[in-house]
Amino acid sequence: MSHYQAPLKDICFNLFDVWQLDKYWQQQSQLQELIEADTAKAILEEAAKICEQQLVPFSGEADKHGAQLKDGKVTLPQHYKIAYQSLTEGGWTSLSGDPQYGGMGMPKALSMMVDEMLCSADIAFSLYPGLTAGACVALLQHADATAKALYLPKMYSGEWSGTMCLTEAHAGSDLGIMRTTAKPVDDGSYLLSGSKIFITAGEHDLTSNIIHLVLAKLPDAPAGSRGISLFLVPKYLPDASGEPGERNGVSVGSIEHKMGINGSATCVLSFDDAKGYLIGEPHRGLACMFTMMNYERLSMGSQGLGAAERAYQNALAYAKDRTQGRVTEKDANKAEPIIGHADVRRMLLNIKAMNEAGRTFATWVASLLDKAKYDNCSVSAQRANLLTPIAKAFMTDQGFDACVTAQQVFGGHGYVKEWGMEQLVRDVRIAQIYEGTNGIQAADFMLRKVAADNGGILLALLSEIKTELAVRPIDTANTLLYYIAELEVLTKGLLAQDLRVQSANACDYLTLVSYVLYGYMWYKNLAALQSSLHAECFIEEKQYTAVYYFERILPKAEGLLAVLRCDSAIMDKFALDHF
Amino acid sequence: MSHYQAPLKDICFNLFDVWQLDKYWQQQSQLQELIEADTAKAILEEAAKICEQQLVPFSGEADKHGAQLKDGKVTLPQHYKIAYQSLTEGGWTSLSGDPQYGGMGMPKALSMMVDEMLCSADIAFSLYPGLTAGACVALLQHADATAKALYLPKMYSGEWSGTMCLTEAHAGSDLGIMRTTAKPVDDGSYLLSGSKIFITAGEHDLTSNIIHLVLAKLPDAPAGSRGISLFLVPKYLPDASGEPGERNGVSVGSIEHKMGINGSATCVLSFDDAKGYLIGEPHRGLACMFTMMNYERLSMGSQGLGAAERAYQNALAYAKDRTQGRVTEKDANKAEPIIGHADVRRMLLNIKAMNEAGRTFATWVASLLDKAKYDNCSVSAQRANLLTPIAKAFMTDQGFDACVTAQQVFGGHGYVKEWGMEQLVRDVRIAQIYEGTNGIQAADFMLRKVAADNGGILLALLSEIKTELAVRPIDTANTLLYYIAELEVLTKGLLAQDLRVQSANACDYLTLVSYVLYGYMWYKNLAALQSSLHAECFIEEKQYTAVYYFERILPKAEGLLAVLRCDSAIMDKFALDHF
Repeated sequence: MSHYQAPLKDICFNLFDVWQLDKYWQQQSQLQELIEADTAKAILEEAAKICEQQLVPFSGEADKHGAQLKDGKVTLPQHYKIAYQSLTEGGWTSLSGDPQYGGMGMPKALSMMVDEMLCSADIAFSLYPGLTAGACVALLQHADATAKALYLPKMYSGEWSGTMCLTEAHAGSDLGIMRTTAKPVDDGSYLLSGSKIFITAGEHDLTSNIIHLVLAKLPDAPAGSRGISLFLVPKYLPDASGEPGERNGVSVGSIEHKMGINGSATCVLSFDDAKGYLIGEPHRGLACMFTMMNYERLSMGSQGLGAAERAYQNALAYAKDRTQGRVTEKDANKAEPIIGHADVRRMLLNIKAMNEAGRTFATWVASLLDKAKYDNCSVSAQRANLLTPIAKAFMTDQGFDACVTAQQVFGGHGYVKEWGMEQLVRDVRIAQIYEGTNGIQAADFMLRKVAADNGGILLALLSEIKTELAVRPIDTANTLLYYIAELEVLTKGLLAQDLRVQSANACDYLTLVSYVLYGYMWYKNLAALQSSLHAECFIEEKQYTAVYYFERILPKAEGLLAVLRCDSAIMDKFALDHF
Repeated sequence: MSHYQAPLKDICFNLFDVWQLDKYWQQQSQLQELIEADTAKAILEEAAKICEQQLVPFSGEADKHGAQLKDGKVTLPQHYKIAYQSLTEGGWTSLSGDPQYGGMGMPKALSMMVDEMLCSADIAFSLYPGLTAGACVALLQHADATAKALYLPKMYSGEWSGTMCLTEAHAGSDLGIMRTTAKPVDDGSYLLSGSKIFITAGEHDLTSNIIHLVLAKLPDAPAGSRGISLFLVPKYLPDASGEPGERNGVSVGSIEHKMGINGSATCVLSFDDAKGYLIGEPHRGLACMFTMMNYERLSMGSQGLGAAERAYQNALAYAKDRTQGRVTEKDANKAEPIIGHADVRRMLLNIKAMNEAGRTFATWVASLLDKAKYDNCSVSAQRANLLTPIAKAFMTDQGFDACVTAQQVFGGHGYVKEWGMEQLVRDVRIAQIYEGTNGIQAADFMLRKVAADNGGILLALLSEIKTELAVRPIDTANTLLYYIAELEVLTKGLLAQDLRVQSANACDYLTLVSYVLYGYMWYKNLAALQSSLHAECFIEEKQYTAVYYFERILPKAEGLLAVLRCDSAIMDKFALDHF
């Protein structure tokens, strides 16, 4: 089995030294009473304990037994119930919830760190509290006061859980063509009918009720995605006292057999005249759901990073322990730890440098969301919006690569189940696919986040980074400036192209921007070392890893630049029978 | 379930147009009676039928049920026996065998194409005939006449199968420290004792006997890898009539539970005073085994390509069938096939361009092996030797990436078992690991194949390619010339560095050389179109795909060049506690 110890030192370095969020929290009236550095550390340490003790040792079991469907009921791995109970008893499910409804009101930057740990411990398990937290965000923003009062406290407490029901068999990335219908009835509610697939946590035995957020079409719905509305459909309709009452017309038809995240019940749900309540305006459901989707997309990044962190820790331990071959040893019968081999170092450092930049990046995006929320700062909101598809796509692509690389460090032992490395690869793979495939993320980034405002938000960000580099030109600033300049030229070139060219280049473009911004993350890490309270123990470690990033990883961006500079017109010359 | 149809058109294009091997075969006294283009086509069509009809429809079942160990016996999926019987009855297991011992004596270029199809159909199954063929190569080259006469006919016929027993729990990449011992006994044989792990096809129910080729140490063995000898250890000792007689002291302790290739029995084998026969010279076992390893390493390339071809075919069919979103359609309620989306085209074309170059590359290496064998051509032998680690490492890396990309085309459906795409990812992953990890391949390439002769073989090859490009400067030749020139400069720079720097750069360097040589493969494809008998139906297809390679894939080499130009010294500054 693979082990895991929460990287609290690097988490605190990011929160308090790189982004100095403790200082920010103290400046906010809504936060200053709630949290300071010591509280945050205590929270993180407690979360780490639950992950390390109640989930990590059993994640292999969860993979083996998985979620089981029998007679319309889904049973989860036994230890999930115990771990979930610890989460609810400790108030963890309410960590980022609104205090008005019983939430702890902690900033996103903190809850995202807990997310990372949970994902390291068990991605499949993390989805149960994760989906609920996402559903709460959508309800908080779009539901009316009655619904909020009825549902949020029980969902924050973890007594009830949530889902998001979007996909249908013929409608995945393209939700506009969905067929689930909602028929208004006299009491102001609706009756929903249709079938949804790939519903994570759609049915399970952790909570006494499940609150489904369902996209469906009203009878007078306009065509396409502008005709979708959002409904709340409880598994059990709350009775007069707000407790689970009558069973609603939603049932699980089957669960998927998947490559990984076997502990997660991925359900086909049938809605048969299921009673539902409209959330937000009619036909505006997709916009409401995107509130939740954006939240989830950040969590996807945590899945990539979480799995990659666990993969790294295990590959590192193996590389220190496993002896094969000789680097300095002269006795042909003796072998040295494989961490001495240059190629093993290369693999480990590739993971390490990307993971640490990823953690800084995740903290950055989360802090922007916090600033958007607490300061009502529109620049922060726009930037968080810009960076969300990167957090989803690049962090999950890197997470997958990291797990594959860590598995490679184990040689043949990485391929057998016993060591747990292959499970990390199988589990994390889904993060590149769900919540909008990484291809969809790239299109969103290129077309809606960059091209739609003619590059304004991105170019302003790059300009601000250049100023920061000029003011504080520490080592590596010049390398970064070079890539920023190349990225600016390339961005302007792409902005002058049509939609088709932009779409063809979207994926490589997102990756290029990500590599450059990860360079900025390493700059921020280096800058933080100079004034850090926490850094003394790893100044050299961070400095070397930054150099590794700038000399052995960032130059890969030259390949992306070269591809992006070439014509993409050839792609459309292919007729169907040319493929 | 995923489907598959053997790509006979492209296979024939490679054999007869790109490399014109039918003409070569007709010039060889050993081959001209055996094979011509029509025979080859008939052979390929028959092989395709077995793969398509007897393996492809059941590969999901093989994954699900896998190899089962009970009471010391291993049972394979039921249909494996039927398919294996078809192979033996049709003489397929003797395809590349020496006619003197009952083999069909077909050239490697042909048998490699059959290998690719078998790997598309089921990598796990392909290992049973594959290992046997490899063992026969080693025996043919190193065993004495008596042993050859006793074992080869039964192994060629498929009645008996073969294994290679190298790895021990503490000795994988580093075989020099192995502990299995071989004690000489009076009758000239040896008694072997020790435990081997990861033994593919170590025990199964397909054949009446299993011939293990085992590495072990003699009592007087020098330390390290120069003290390893090769032994033949039959599961059943042949009796006086050459039939399986007394049970030998080799038994299966357990089989591994793995990420994939579940139909392959990966065994822990115990040798308890097992009777064995020395093959080749004492202490020269590793050299003997490398005969087999090189053969296997080429087959690994076929595994990468085979899985990638099947993945491509399925992703393509799905992309033509699955409707999501609109490119030209105006009705918001209608959706178009996703192959219309630029990013889906990008994914498909990335796979297609690499697969077709890979097939040309595999045919090239195989034809070099044939020329080395039939013409006794040392330049061909050296080049095959140079290119073998590329065929193993790059083709399997690309094969894995292709399967992951094809899975991505399916969106969520790629992650559920039903569609078979996730199995391809799990199955092909092993090819990057076994038979020498791809890191080991890169070190072999950089240190033993390039640096050891000061780049002589590689630089001569590049020089010859440049001449060819100058003589026949079709489109894209200039792009290729540019990358060859960059590669030459970089190679000379690396040759001037020490072992440590070369090792640190080995992996990226192998990848760079591969991209450049795949460019040469596309050049060869284009050149063949001009004089082809088979190309009329896909002139445009090949031309467009070549342009795609040169404009959208090869430029990635700029990233590798940039990394390789940077200093790698930082990697050794990391002390153990810096990781």
